[in-house]
Amino acid sequence: MDSSHKRPYYAVIFTSVKKLDVQGYDEMAARMETLSRKQSGFLGQHSVRESSGLGITVSYWQSEEDIAAWKANVEHQIAQDRGKSDWYEGYEVRVCKVEREHSFGSLQCE
Amino acid sequence: MDSSHKRPYYAVIFTSVKKLDVQGYDEMAARMETLSRKQSGFLGQHSVRESSGLGITVSYWQSEEDIAAWKANVEHQIAQDRGKSDWYEGYEVRVCKVEREHSFGSLQCE
Repeated sequence: MDSSHKRPYYAVIFTSVKKLDVQGYDEMAARMETLSRKQSGFLGQHSVRESSGLGITVSYWQSEEDIAAWKANVEHQIAQDRGKSDWYEGYEVRVCKVEREHSFGSLQCE
Repeated sequence: MDSSHKRPYYAVIFTSVKKLDVQGYDEMAARMETLSRKQSGFLGQHSVRESSGLGITVSYWQSEEDIAAWKANVEHQIAQDRGKSDWYEGYEVRVCKVEREHSFGSLQCE
């Protein structure tokens, strides 16, 4: 995440619990990350998942319209459907407006 | 995180890279979680850290004033100082206003 982006910009917080021993998840996650990076307005992403299954992915976007366009992407919609049927015990999605920020040192970030 | 909270409410996204083999970190993190839960306006928290050191903690608050009060808490300020001197390679903090949300299934959440 390049911190030089001008506000307003937006964060999508995706908090999820993944089922254990699911098929095809890692390939889907990698494909969705590749696809999202090509979307208009994509600014960056951080993603962490523990072996327990709990994960948080935060992606950053220039506008709410960019977020809506990514949500409506056809391949992403197929992944969203499989997420509900096959991969996740549950998830929460929050679309947020970044009001202010500060940082220290550097992250290995994307 | 109880999803019944009325908007507006706020998310603090804390993305960090922890140094390896640090002393006292786990005790501090547990103490800060206990303290934050007692703060006015605290709504919930999700926290994930990978063995690589990358972690994301998202805490939810009723107002920006509640967030400012927690940041100014004396014991929390000591922890923030030790975070910079001892524990973190780097971190980013973003204060965000939750615009909308949706969910599926259930999380093991707090």
